[in-house]
Amino acid sequence: MGSVDIPSKQSAAVREGTGESAKAPVKQIDVRMPGAGEILIKVNWTGLCASDKSLIHDEWKDFGVAMQDATKGIAGHEGAGVVVAVGEGAESRWKVRSTGTDEVHCTAQKNSGFSAEGTFQEYLVADARYSSKIPDGVKDEEAGPIMCGGVTAYVACKRSSVKPGQWIVLPGAGGGLGHFAVQYARAMGMRVIAIDGGDAKRDLCKKLGAEVFIDYTATSDIAAEVMKVTGAGAHGVLVTAATKQAYDMAPGLLRPNGTVVVVGLPKDPSVVAGAPPIMMALRRLNFVGSVVGSLKDVEEALDFTARGLVHPILSKGKLTELDDFMEKMSKGQLPGRAVLQVAA
Amino acid sequence: MGSVDIPSKQSAAVREGTGESAKAPVKQIDVRMPGAGEILIKVNWTGLCASDKSLIHDEWKDFGVAMQDATKGIAGHEGAGVVVAVGEGAESRWKVRSTGTDEVHCTAQKNSGFSAEGTFQEYLVADARYSSKIPDGVKDEEAGPIMCGGVTAYVACKRSSVKPGQWIVLPGAGGGLGHFAVQYARAMGMRVIAIDGGDAKRDLCKKLGAEVFIDYTATSDIAAEVMKVTGAGAHGVLVTAATKQAYDMAPGLLRPNGTVVVVGLPKDPSVVAGAPPIMMALRRLNFVGSVVGSLKDVEEALDFTARGLVHPILSKGKLTELDDFMEKMSKGQLPGRAVLQVAA
Amino acid sequence: MGSVDIPSKQSAAVREGTGESAKAPVKQIDVRMPGAGEILIKVNWTGLCASDKSLIHDEWKDFGVAMQDATKGIAGHEGAGVVVAVGEGAESRWKVRSTGTDEVHCTAQKNSGFSAEGTFQEYLVADARYSSKIPDGVKDEEAGPIMCGGVTAYVACKRSSVKPGQWIVLPGAGGGLGHFAVQYARAMGMRVIAIDGGDAKRDLCKKLGAEVFIDYTATSDIAAEVMKVTGAGAHGVLVTAATKQAYDMAPGLLRPNGTVVVVGLPKDPSVVAGAPPIMMALRRLNFVGSVVGSLKDVEEALDFTARGLVHPILSKGKLTELDDFMEKMSKGQLPGRAVLQVAA
Amino acid sequence: MGSVDIPSKQSAAVREGTGESAKAPVKQIDVRMPGAGEILIKVNWTGLCASDKSLIHDEWKDFGVAMQDATKGIAGHEGAGVVVAVGEGAESRWKVRSTGTDEVHCTAQKNSGFSAEGTFQEYLVADARYSSKIPDGVKDEEAGPIMCGGVTAYVACKRSSVKPGQWIVLPGAGGGLGHFAVQYARAMGMRVIAIDGGDAKRDLCKKLGAEVFIDYTATSDIAAEVMKVTGAGAHGVLVTAATKQAYDMAPGLLRPNGTVVVVGLPKDPSVVAGAPPIMMALRRLNFVGSVVGSLKDVEEALDFTARGLVHPILSKGKLTELDDFMEKMSKGQLPGRAVLQVAA
Repeated sequence: MGSVDIPSKQSAAVREGTGESAKAPVKQIDVRMPGAGEILIKVNWTGLCASDKSLIHDEWKDFGVAMQDATKGIAGHEGAGVVVAVGEGAESRWKVRSTGTDEVHCTAQKNSGFSAEGTFQEYLVADARYSSKIPDGVKDEEAGPIMCGGVTAYVACKRSSVKPGQWIVLPGAGGGLGHFAVQYARAMGMRVIAIDGGDAKRDLCKKLGAEVFIDYTATSDIAAEVMKVTGAGAHGVLVTAATKQAYDMAPGLLRPNGTVVVVGLPKDPSVVAGAPPIMMALRRLNFVGSVVGSLKDVEEALDFTARGLVHPILSKGKLTELDDFMEKMSKGQLPGRAVLQVAA
Repeated sequence: MGSVDIPSKQSAAVREGTGESAKAPVKQIDVRMPGAGEILIKVNWTGLCASDKSLIHDEWKDFGVAMQDATKGIAGHEGAGVVVAVGEGAESRWKVRSTGTDEVHCTAQKNSGFSAEGTFQEYLVADARYSSKIPDGVKDEEAGPIMCGGVTAYVACKRSSVKPGQWIVLPGAGGGLGHFAVQYARAMGMRVIAIDGGDAKRDLCKKLGAEVFIDYTATSDIAAEVMKVTGAGAHGVLVTAATKQAYDMAPGLLRPNGTVVVVGLPKDPSVVAGAPPIMMALRRLNFVGSVVGSLKDVEEALDFTARGLVHPILSKGKLTELDDFMEKMSKGQLPGRAVLQVAA
Repeated sequence: MGSVDIPSKQSAAVREGTGESAKAPVKQIDVRMPGAGEILIKVNWTGLCASDKSLIHDEWKDFGVAMQDATKGIAGHEGAGVVVAVGEGAESRWKVRSTGTDEVHCTAQKNSGFSAEGTFQEYLVADARYSSKIPDGVKDEEAGPIMCGGVTAYVACKRSSVKPGQWIVLPGAGGGLGHFAVQYARAMGMRVIAIDGGDAKRDLCKKLGAEVFIDYTATSDIAAEVMKVTGAGAHGVLVTAATKQAYDMAPGLLRPNGTVVVVGLPKDPSVVAGAPPIMMALRRLNFVGSVVGSLKDVEEALDFTARGLVHPILSKGKLTELDDFMEKMSKGQLPGRAVLQVAA
Repeated sequence: MGSVDIPSKQSAAVREGTGESAKAPVKQIDVRMPGAGEILIKVNWTGLCASDKSLIHDEWKDFGVAMQDATKGIAGHEGAGVVVAVGEGAESRWKVRSTGTDEVHCTAQKNSGFSAEGTFQEYLVADARYSSKIPDGVKDEEAGPIMCGGVTAYVACKRSSVKPGQWIVLPGAGGGLGHFAVQYARAMGMRVIAIDGGDAKRDLCKKLGAEVFIDYTATSDIAAEVMKVTGAGAHGVLVTAATKQAYDMAPGLLRPNGTVVVVGLPKDPSVVAGAPPIMMALRRLNFVGSVVGSLKDVEEALDFTARGLVHPILSKGKLTELDDFMEKMSKGQLPGRAVLQVAA
């Protein structure tokens, strides 16, 4: 921790307006000091996740999901930085380089940037219990995306029950979640069949460790391709693509007793992850849902990065560029994961 | 085995005609002696499964499934009796009281009554490798149903991952598969919530060990009932009912990380066992398919009956009554599992 | 909680002297009020565990284990009663009828009666986070023993990997831990072979649900007996007896791939739980250690009692009889688990 | 298969004499043709395992283990070659390039070179059911060692329950079994701490993928070293070294809930794989035995070699050099696994 001067004012991107036209310009606001059990984190970098944009632009209003007052208009949940002050009773756990993510899965959980102040500010107060220590070897700009998209992909790989030497199919392998899944699956000894569209995605997936790439824009029968490669079908399919096509296709790629991991969340509420009972029963298929992970999972996911086995593809910017980045995100102009520098 | 006189002729119910009007009257046909690796079983009792009726009446023609020539028109797959002759090389495995069921799950499997001669005859030639020894304490009339519906329910209970002391919900609990599931679940230490309609089903389910019965004909909100009983939802739902309603309802009865076991096979091809991805992922639900079981599973399932913990409800008759029984089955007039006496 | 008058003074059994001659007479001491995150429990009953006696009499001094100053001389860790006051920030979790046991397994754990004040007093201050709510249907005099010996036996049964319908052998089945193991194993669907000595133990074990009893005082070859009953050997052996004989015998009772659960802790430091590598490898045996359980395990263990499936055998007394009870315990004159009434 | 001329006579190494002075010179003996269910394999290469030497030299006589008459004096169990003739009823399974290993674990099993003729002959008759097809990309001289030592190490890695990213310690890592374990563990995503003695072993282990090497000849406190690297201890220890020291050290290298896999078989019958109950219980440790593997395991183990991830270190010779090789083996002069060319 050392002796750090904590200013009374800080920069934060605070939401203005509502709906699609909402903005989040940077303003000067007060720095709050940590209370009992809390820590103050100087946020060096924060990820910009698609869900941050959805919250700022009220895209999930119809599902009853919106930024709550407790956020004070500050979104963001993929922060990483340095602990600069420690509240009473929190010393025992934290020294330096921790994150402000608040990710447990309990009925009373507080989610950073959704039901509590988020990471789009220089000085974030966080609950010490739910903050993760970032290991040596992980850069702050990488840590945020790993703690969100990375751990999501990692836990999904675990949930697939695919063993070292067995085949996993990754529809959407070149995307924000998919490109993590390729790397984690490989590091876990799985053989990867990546599915995505176009030569750039092919190059990316191959470079990250996919053994086989299937270009859906150029393949008429994907299931036949998968059968040709695997013999009897894949052991698992991890659906990161948030599309009806991906879910409809998934069970047909499996060998008996194979598993579809449900991760991607299509906006269309009529999409169902499943299969006709006769197919499910006779082939003894499995469908399992997966969502982010526990603090222990986060620690494990970061460890793969610290060892140099998993890295996010990053599109970098500064907190002041938040609105620009959200616009580019809408247009699909941000490859990989977007991260913004917060504290200088 | 002892010294048994094996006649040259025997009674068998042989299919005549096609489609819904097909019949299976009893005729005299030749007895075939076992070849290498085969055994000859004097069939004392055979179960009459709904699938036997479907095959005799060509009900699955649209799915490309029909009795094959190798059956010689003899259906049936739930036989039990005594081994009366043993072919070369089969001695090492079998002495007395075995079954003719042929149940392995390989691409070259032969299914009794579908792709090989069935159990609706007095003297059945069977592959010694795929016949199960019936333990002491299991009656021949019980063995057939246990080796089909019983093992199906037993394996499905195992696939549910529900632990002793946890809750399992059984839609269709009073039916042919369901009444087995109630008993196996109880014997495995689970707490059972049975769902079915009417007081007779209530009495049956309670007698077999259900802790809670929900009458769907008198309950407006089944999910609310299940939540009231379980607190946070059940740990598993085992769907034996072959209906769209049962599959649509199942995931909503679960607590986070709970499991739907897919067993019942609706005729309607549009039914899907599954849930919207957002529900699957956020609640980390599981759907798993299950179908009959291995020879070892059959052995285990029979063992529960030998110990007096699981018994089928039986509607008994004689092989000569086969056509009558199939008619009653169509009208829903056969409670429990139908079994027919074959050899005198 | 209601309005309870909390006195300023209370009765507590406080240790005097050291070594074998130490006593714990009841005295009047101050009642302490709960601080932040703490609750005050009026202890109705406390169990008297063999380890309490060992601590009071300095029996583990050679292992460096002794009552610490923080206990203020008050031992006991199996308390159950009513929450009568709630410190700041602890309200959210506790209302009424909770326990003072402090059982987590972390490096900073505080153990009731060992490194913190114990349950041998009327008014106990406990950490709300590590106190378990006692469900309806469990009496206070039963709750303490369940939360210590009961959960130990329950978790050991889970660690055995023995499935419903499979065989578990319980050496020491009639003892303080063993009599719980018989009941939990049965409630989990296992088939129980109890081993102990004498007709009283036989009657007890049979009454609690053992299918087979082997009297070691009258059996020359226990392994042969187990083989006769099980065919190929048991699936698991749960050693609650703290003897070299039990550990030496255990692996020889197993079928291939079977499991020995290590629970009983012999005083003789030369005893090893294990087997020669050639036996371990060729028969693919497993040895697994088990010790009490988590808060969730405690909750599950109590639930079996609430359902009427598991009950402790109790020897009841009053806190003022503590020294008498310890003397009887030394002489083996206390059947089952000893419990003492604390608050009137 | 094609048209292969099968000679009536063949070369075989047939045992002469008994005890330590026994020899196995090459002679001309009759070729036997395959019977029903059998295949005739032209053995291109055979491994020479330490157990072959032990059998030929009667080293296990005291344990009642010796070459049986059915071997006709022909040892060997790591053969690989080409199927050149197929008996009746065996066609359906085998075409070309299969092995003569007979490895199932049933009470009636026949073991090549121990209770049936072995692979130290040009033309071996084998049971088609228990022969494994060797995949493309695996050389015959590699296949034998993979099907014995390789699968042993592979299955032991699976039995360790160590997950990708977790630590496994391998005492004896540079030896015949150990050098396979390093490679399989790495291919399965584990982090490997190799223990062995000397710089040559260090170089070998590092080259094969060990992340850390501990030289036991130069390290006073191995447990302290392991703790320094892993923090709280390793997740698993796979003991391939057949020494008392290795077994005594193993449990002390583990973190709570870690697993010792028992593979190496010391000659000293007093060695025990295990730990004091108090250590086993309080740290919830696991000991599991492991021995070779199933046919499916063999297939998987070979697949890692076909993919280029696991290769045996070989010392190559010819069948006529068998006695020389056994002498060198006794003196520890054969690095890696010994293989002998059989058919020209």
